[in-house]
Amino acid sequence: MRSDVRHFRCEIEDGIATVSLDRPERKNPLTFDSYAELRDWFRDLSYADDVTAVVFASNGGNFSSGGDVHDIIGPLTKMSMKELLAFTRMTGDLVKAMVNCGKPIIAAIDGICVGAGAIIAMASDLRIGTPEAKCAFLFTRVGLAGCDMGACAILPRIIGQGRAAELLYTGRSMSAEEGAAWGFYNRVVAADDLDGAARELAERIGRGPNFGHMMTKTMLAQEWSMSIEQAIEAEAQAQAICMQTADFERAYRAFVAKETPVFEGD
Amino acid sequence: MRSDVRHFRCEIEDGIATVSLDRPERKNPLTFDSYAELRDWFRDLSYADDVTAVVFASNGGNFSSGGDVHDIIGPLTKMSMKELLAFTRMTGDLVKAMVNCGKPIIAAIDGICVGAGAIIAMASDLRIGTPEAKCAFLFTRVGLAGCDMGACAILPRIIGQGRAAELLYTGRSMSAEEGAAWGFYNRVVAADDLDGAARELAERIGRGPNFGHMMTKTMLAQEWSMSIEQAIEAEAQAQAICMQTADFERAYRAFVAKETPVFEGD
Amino acid sequence: MRSDVRHFRCEIEDGIATVSLDRPERKNPLTFDSYAELRDWFRDLSYADDVTAVVFASNGGNFSSGGDVHDIIGPLTKMSMKELLAFTRMTGDLVKAMVNCGKPIIAAIDGICVGAGAIIAMASDLRIGTPEAKCAFLFTRVGLAGCDMGACAILPRIIGQGRAAELLYTGRSMSAEEGAAWGFYNRVVAADDLDGAARELAERIGRGPNFGHMMTKTMLAQEWSMSIEQAIEAEAQAQAICMQTADFERAYRAFVAKETPVFEGD
Repeated sequence: MRSDVRHFRCEIEDGIATVSLDRPERKNPLTFDSYAELRDWFRDLSYADDVTAVVFASNGGNFSSGGDVHDIIGPLTKMSMKELLAFTRMTGDLVKAMVNCGKPIIAAIDGICVGAGAIIAMASDLRIGTPEAKCAFLFTRVGLAGCDMGACAILPRIIGQGRAAELLYTGRSMSAEEGAAWGFYNRVVAADDLDGAARELAERIGRGPNFGHMMTKTMLAQEWSMSIEQAIEAEAQAQAICMQTADFERAYRAFVAKETPVFEGD
Repeated sequence: MRSDVRHFRCEIEDGIATVSLDRPERKNPLTFDSYAELRDWFRDLSYADDVTAVVFASNGGNFSSGGDVHDIIGPLTKMSMKELLAFTRMTGDLVKAMVNCGKPIIAAIDGICVGAGAIIAMASDLRIGTPEAKCAFLFTRVGLAGCDMGACAILPRIIGQGRAAELLYTGRSMSAEEGAAWGFYNRVVAADDLDGAARELAERIGRGPNFGHMMTKTMLAQEWSMSIEQAIEAEAQAQAICMQTADFERAYRAFVAKETPVFEGD
Repeated sequence: MRSDVRHFRCEIEDGIATVSLDRPERKNPLTFDSYAELRDWFRDLSYADDVTAVVFASNGGNFSSGGDVHDIIGPLTKMSMKELLAFTRMTGDLVKAMVNCGKPIIAAIDGICVGAGAIIAMASDLRIGTPEAKCAFLFTRVGLAGCDMGACAILPRIIGQGRAAELLYTGRSMSAEEGAAWGFYNRVVAADDLDGAARELAERIGRGPNFGHMMTKTMLAQEWSMSIEQAIEAEAQAQAICMQTADFERAYRAFVAKETPVFEGD
């Protein structure tokens, strides 16, 4: 997997890719370029075997200030409907690419995490926050609707319909304490421990079984709007596939030998 | 929007409509008439531009005692299937009208909030309670099923499937403390502060952007059973529409001028 | 309803069926035989009128250690795809049979509750735990995916998408405290009180209205992936059916006579 990106930061080490936005002096806004490059990078990730998990990190004490007011919102106010739809589809394509990339994504959220930044956090699989994390789905504050990049579908499933409605109507900040109590954050750690905690969790998950993790991620999305009966049949098929992987046999042999299994991803 | 209703209370002031049931001496039961008139009023609301948010208030210390035992349950025990279905569809139509009215609804819940009253609370967008609020989906206690007016679909999305199942099977009261911890109440305030807190929240939301709020409300319902991919495409279209509103440009101009945007709803 | 089963324990008393796995010395693993017999027993239950509620109990201080490593996992590593799919469908059929049996199921969870044991807990309607309950969806630890027997669909609806994702990726234990805060457990009681609390809740629910409870259970599953509008129409029909039961009239008459209704299930 390539790490030579231009419009965001990317490091890959021992199979863990760490990405972050990279204008810390402006709290890491998104631009047209970083949206598009992130979308393409996550799309490519679905074909990569050398990355097992992703950390979407903060940078300089903030996660992201969302779509840049000058670089993005200004131009949008002048666009035709055709151009607007091309833009909103591109932003939605980033979420789709994250959901479909096959690798668990852990968002490590410090400081400001608003607008499209909050969406990236929401679209990740797991979230670790700091006490300073301020997450706001502030689309209404720029004159728009809360339905941005899947928020009206995804946020209610994470924190509940009533709490999501409040955040989406008012655009107010969710505190770290609320986010932990509501299930938005899987854990809240001190800012100094954030990168370490995210990396540790990524490494734990990255040890595999990575084919299984890909299938877990696939099915969490795939079963979103299935009936219970359809979901159970879908999982019967998905798990039967996993039972023919070598990692399943490796785990069994390790258990019999009273050893810790070493997964290889096939 | 008309406020000259006969079977419930309705006041409209500065774009905020405050409605409540109006038999406080009997804890505000619903009747055939109030069901029908509420349904019609919320249906009309979807075409009104002069109301921006609704407070569904308590009255005399209680929200609602639900379907009146003498006025509703007695007659129901004597009806034909055709008449029964006409009744259950009318009650369901009230929930549909609330969901489709295009304006955020804030339920302000004090005291008794049971049966169809609990459903009205559940079908609102946001809920503020008091420590005395007692909310019970008590349909099983009158010999019926928990599946009333959408409860088996909507309540689990607000408080989780296991908690909803308990309330729907047992018909027991949910305390204010439980309701706050579970995400049923967005906030719990002292009874004396209830009307003020609900009005303040309604005014805050009512300041707009109201076209955006209508779209948020629409999409929260619309994406209920879509796949993730469908929801993201639906939001790309919905948000592109919002980006051609004048309110979006007003917000941008206000930001550049370092002013607070004044939204006008178009 | 028959209680003469061979591969698990089953007692039926006063309409409450209490079942449990029965190899306490090995923490109650599942075997091919107990899977199949449980599936068949829950399928038969949908036709039984003499059982009103089920307690899925712990045994010897543990709920279940899941699929037995020697009896199940070993053989699975040697099976053809056809055989694997037959197995995963059989396990899924147990969940389907529990969901479709028409009687509320209360899981009483002490000690170890992992793998397929955690799934049985999840697929129950209500869950009571003890402080010692350790529930783990540990499929990834045996080299498989978290999508087993419906977990990626059902668990997120109980505890939220982010928490479910963490449990399913890492396979880590959910503590009793977490489970209570997240809505997995409806209640946590001391181990000595577990059987009594589960039985008491089963008896309370078992007093009826049992036709109504069957309909509540049916619709909680049926509306899983309906739109809001479809769910409301479905409930209008389901509740109209319930309004023609004698139990509805019994409740009304008892209310008028200021008595407690005695439901008879029709």
